[in-house]
Amino acid sequence: MQPLSSLISPDRSGRSPLYLQIAGQLTALIRNGTLQPGHRLLSSRQLAILLQVNRRTIVQAYDELLAQGWLESHTGSGTYVARSLPEMASEKTTKPGGDNITALSKAGFTFRKLTHLNKAVLKSGSRLHLDDGFPDARLAPVDDLSRAYRSQLIRGNPYVRLGYGDTKGSAWLRQELSAHLNETRGLKTTADNVLITRGVTMGVNLVSSALLNKGDIVAVDSHGWSGAMMNFVHAGASIVQVPVDQYGMDVKALEQICEQKPVRLVYVTSHHHYPTTVALRPDRRIALLQLSAKYGFAIFEDDYDYDFHYMSKPLLPLAGADQHGMVLYCGSFTKTISPAFRVGFLVGPEDIISELALLRRIVDRQGDQMLENAIAELMQTGVIQRHLRKSVRIYRQRRDHFTELLKSELSNYLQFEVPDGGMAVWAKFNADIDLPHLASKASQKDLYCSSGFSQRKEFTNTVRLGFASSNLNELEESVSIIRNLL
Amino acid sequence: MQPLSSLISPDRSGRSPLYLQIAGQLTALIRNGTLQPGHRLLSSRQLAILLQVNRRTIVQAYDELLAQGWLESHTGSGTYVARSLPEMASEKTTKPGGDNITALSKAGFTFRKLTHLNKAVLKSGSRLHLDDGFPDARLAPVDDLSRAYRSQLIRGNPYVRLGYGDTKGSAWLRQELSAHLNETRGLKTTADNVLITRGVTMGVNLVSSALLNKGDIVAVDSHGWSGAMMNFVHAGASIVQVPVDQYGMDVKALEQICEQKPVRLVYVTSHHHYPTTVALRPDRRIALLQLSAKYGFAIFEDDYDYDFHYMSKPLLPLAGADQHGMVLYCGSFTKTISPAFRVGFLVGPEDIISELALLRRIVDRQGDQMLENAIAELMQTGVIQRHLRKSVRIYRQRRDHFTELLKSELSNYLQFEVPDGGMAVWAKFNADIDLPHLASKASQKDLYCSSGFSQRKEFTNTVRLGFASSNLNELEESVSIIRNLL
Repeated sequence: MQPLSSLISPDRSGRSPLYLQIAGQLTALIRNGTLQPGHRLLSSRQLAILLQVNRRTIVQAYDELLAQGWLESHTGSGTYVARSLPEMASEKTTKPGGDNITALSKAGFTFRKLTHLNKAVLKSGSRLHLDDGFPDARLAPVDDLSRAYRSQLIRGNPYVRLGYGDTKGSAWLRQELSAHLNETRGLKTTADNVLITRGVTMGVNLVSSALLNKGDIVAVDSHGWSGAMMNFVHAGASIVQVPVDQYGMDVKALEQICEQKPVRLVYVTSHHHYPTTVALRPDRRIALLQLSAKYGFAIFEDDYDYDFHYMSKPLLPLAGADQHGMVLYCGSFTKTISPAFRVGFLVGPEDIISELALLRRIVDRQGDQMLENAIAELMQTGVIQRHLRKSVRIYRQRRDHFTELLKSELSNYLQFEVPDGGMAVWAKFNADIDLPHLASKASQKDLYCSSGFSQRKEFTNTVRLGFASSNLNELEESVSIIRNLL
Repeated sequence: MQPLSSLISPDRSGRSPLYLQIAGQLTALIRNGTLQPGHRLLSSRQLAILLQVNRRTIVQAYDELLAQGWLESHTGSGTYVARSLPEMASEKTTKPGGDNITALSKAGFTFRKLTHLNKAVLKSGSRLHLDDGFPDARLAPVDDLSRAYRSQLIRGNPYVRLGYGDTKGSAWLRQELSAHLNETRGLKTTADNVLITRGVTMGVNLVSSALLNKGDIVAVDSHGWSGAMMNFVHAGASIVQVPVDQYGMDVKALEQICEQKPVRLVYVTSHHHYPTTVALRPDRRIALLQLSAKYGFAIFEDDYDYDFHYMSKPLLPLAGADQHGMVLYCGSFTKTISPAFRVGFLVGPEDIISELALLRRIVDRQGDQMLENAIAELMQTGVIQRHLRKSVRIYRQRRDHFTELLKSELSNYLQFEVPDGGMAVWAKFNADIDLPHLASKASQKDLYCSSGFSQRKEFTNTVRLGFASSNLNELEESVSIIRNLL
């Protein structure tokens, strides 16, 4: 056997305490068979001299291993490798997590295909951004939020306040939301119709997981928001794209699809279609509800930007006109406050909401009660509503300024309609403009813009240009950068 | 046609504005066919008189419906029900969400069986509680947390700080956790081996959803934590219970199972087995890793209460001795801070962590960056570590006091071993004591205690008595209440 001093070499500059390093290396020697069960170890004094460390360090290492059962100490006769350990074959130590092909894969584990989830995530490192349509986080009422959050942390009975809660989410927020949705969106809900989620993503996730079976057909308003599409595909569903024109989803085309295939779920961004920003026309809304009754499909209404309407009053959601309880209605504070606040809501029949709350329980047990209650407090005191009014006023200015800039500076290069709401303009660049190249050049000028939806023919050279997250100067700078690159 | 005044009856005491109520009722009349397309409506002045409301209210209601496309106005000749609406059959209006049997079910939607998720949730309304083993939220460092949370909200670039982030979780927290786990638990990780989750629940959920297929066999240390079991069942797996004795999971029994069936995943609470609180003995740990290599099963090590050990140093996790990259290691701040802080971590090979981060993205997009960064800050400044040392000291006192009370007051009625860690005592009441009855009586005295694990024969009349969330006086009160009920 080699001398222990060559086998144990603690790293004095390492973050890990010396005694733990020595204990770890001794364990490895036991495990790979260098030190056999029953082997008598050097005394702590001897080993300390050998390794040139403080004796106390060795005593600590031995104590650790005694406590863990790797060693046993026989009074008066020293310290031994425990005899109760099973014989171990000598094994090559591999760096945990270091392999690219993991043991799990080699052992035959087939991960479910997640390649459909491998969509690039927006890089937000640029100073300027014509993004997908995000809110301006600089406007978020963070002072009010942190005050309310603090009051939720410190007040009341901590056992209840900071303990396990209702998987449906904060009762207070559900109450506030129910009243708010009834007042402003024509819904007829009680708190029991509301499940608090972590954004629309979780709403789609729960519904997909509970309602969809492998092979089910989901029709979406083309081409659909990727966060929803990935969930449908992950649940094993087949996706059928329904064409969209300037009045939203082509409901007649949907009916033709329903004639041919058993559509189970229709996903629709009714208020402002993603990505084209058009609103679903009232007669089509009614027709969609009628088709739902006729063909028995459920409707997932993703109303992510209801609050942001600049022209007339917004159309009330489909959910409010739902006679049959077939609409699951979803919204969130992602656009209202900022994406980092993962609080949203799913509205539906009481029994379905209860069922989905059971499912929520095994996903992450419950939401963030403190944050949910903080938002409820800000709704009750009107802070959220004031913030919304302010945001809508500011975003309307930005839309007006941005679309004027597009007209005056870029009308030779792109076409667009002024959107009547939302946070982005849907623009089609001329065919001779290489959009990915433009986006790459812009990025060098510290401006993020998307390289477009080139994967679908009808969307060739089109792109969403988000205006809400930039102030007027930033919008001018951004348009000027693009102008100079063309 | 009946007079409109009898069909439209706004409720002046309602929360919803009058004009919205009137607009809603008009829409219902159009939808049920009372008002046909092309029908000329009363002028706003006439309808205002009829309904005895301000004329402006009717103008608002008409404007709303014009904007929504339900009405159309012909200059000079008044306001009409829009002709572009499809013919509507008269329908009985049903209250959305009011039915117990929903239209979705009637339309043939079969919810996945979620009855396995329908486990009662702990009621925490009592003043006193011998719970399942929860921490004392009164000790949580809420001042430090709210300060750190605030600083995360207000500092830095809001577009990045409050925008979309890494689905793996806060890079800062992953870095801090990696260093912490390496130093204190003998793991060898980098931040790339760490995925931030929302508690152990989400760790199990992601792993189940990614790794398990229908019919896969999962072996669990009997009888297993319900949060994990529900996830395995939901993923379609069959669960096999492996017996547990005073040294933890019976690894020989597991081997016999592996000989007969292809076990894919072993779920183990190695440090303190749930519910019995015993620790898995070192030789069994090694044997378990060897079986994993031999039979190709993955190990999910749920190390929910590693930090709470009162006797000797805790045994290092299995994950640290994993030579083959077969262990997925999971822990959380649920016990360290309190259950409401849904922040946990899953540690594993880098490629699996990346894969699970893709999956995380469709569940809820990302965690709460502000809270994750706040906890990272408290780890970097040592607040969490100090809080842990303080908690362990206090919980040890409580354990000692509680187990002495059990011995002196209740030794005629129950048997137990003093646990060397964790937050609960595993106690077996005498066969003649009706535990559910006792729990119900205790509840009337404002003391919550569980009615036990009666569903499994080997656990008849056993119960977890959590001591950590009660101070010494409360423990005395609680034992006294039980004593008086026996």
